[in-house]
Amino acid sequence: MKNRIFERCVGELSKLPGIGRKTAARLALHILKTDAEHVKSLAESLVELKEKTVFCKICGNMSETETCHICTDDYRNRSQLCVVEEAKDIYILEATGFFRGLYHVLGGRISPLDGIGPDELRIEELLQRTKDGSVTEVILATNPDIEGETTAIYLSKLLKKNNLKITKIASGIPIGTNLEYTDEITLLKAMEQRKDF
Amino acid sequence: MKNRIFERCVGELSKLPGIGRKTAARLALHILKTDAEHVKSLAESLVELKEKTVFCKICGNMSETETCHICTDDYRNRSQLCVVEEAKDIYILEATGFFRGLYHVLGGRISPLDGIGPDELRIEELLQRTKDGSVTEVILATNPDIEGETTAIYLSKLLKKNNLKITKIASGIPIGTNLEYTDEITLLKAMEQRKDF
Repeated sequence: MKNRIFERCVGELSKLPGIGRKTAARLALHILKTDAEHVKSLAESLVELKEKTVFCKICGNMSETETCHICTDDYRNRSQLCVVEEAKDIYILEATGFFRGLYHVLGGRISPLDGIGPDELRIEELLQRTKDGSVTEVILATNPDIEGETTAIYLSKLLKKNNLKITKIASGIPIGTNLEYTDEITLLKAMEQRKDF
Repeated sequence: MKNRIFERCVGELSKLPGIGRKTAARLALHILKTDAEHVKSLAESLVELKEKTVFCKICGNMSETETCHICTDDYRNRSQLCVVEEAKDIYILEATGFFRGLYHVLGGRISPLDGIGPDELRIEELLQRTKDGSVTEVILATNPDIEGETTAIYLSKLLKKNNLKITKIASGIPIGTNLEYTDEITLLKAMEQRKDF
């Protein structure tokens, strides 16, 4: 005779990534204290997001239309293509406001242990997009871990055939932290890739 | 022409406690990759939780019925009353399975800076519940911070008039951690409250 409705909600919330049972319980308790109107609004936005969002047929970004707002934006620099693992990475990079080119979402990274090879990723589409000469620079923005690096190396070998400038976002010590708290591999990379000052 | 649906969902999710915009974006991206059925189930459970859950008229615990499953459970020890700040604390304590008595939710803690005095809490109800002599022990399980301690001290003074045994959950070094990583105030408390071994 426990509170089944609460347990169900905790169960549903704890399916979300990074949300354990304790956090889920905290969120559910918060829901209980929130206006019914706000809860409905949250619930609706989740369903709406799932129902009305598609992935852009060109770059793989999430979009409300067949082609996303970046691919259709005439003010973006069409000679630069930034390759990311997931659509969420576009969201993160766009928040910086620095990059004004286009994106290409791979839909993952090469990870043999998880059974993900090059064929599972949107690599063929990337090669097609970089074939006609309109793109001059491909920026690899995969994550700086083993799978991300492997994917970047694989892509750079393929793309070099198309005679493109290939760059990779810098690895190093994050701004605002302390050398003391930086792991050794990051420090090693930062020393290796030191720049003239 | 950004993705308004996605932005709306991120906005809604980031209203939840402990969820910043980055986490909200991560959750929203996860929603996009989840089956529509699962998303609907999550959304429904949120609305259902809000619509069908009330607070127990006796102890203040969340409940699907007027009186919660703990207050109506004949196998619980009715002589022990554990006082907690919020309904969620019951959920956390019940997970240990140790305590078999009843609960009383204060609905917060005394915090003059936030404008919360004793009158805002369910203290009068607590005094009523401990008046008839059926309760012999009140266990104070407020949080071990300034407001929680203040509330505990305030309650203990009030409750002593009812001739009750008043106890408080122990403060000390959490199990599984290291002295090195324990803050000084916790260490001080642990030394002060040392026990025969």
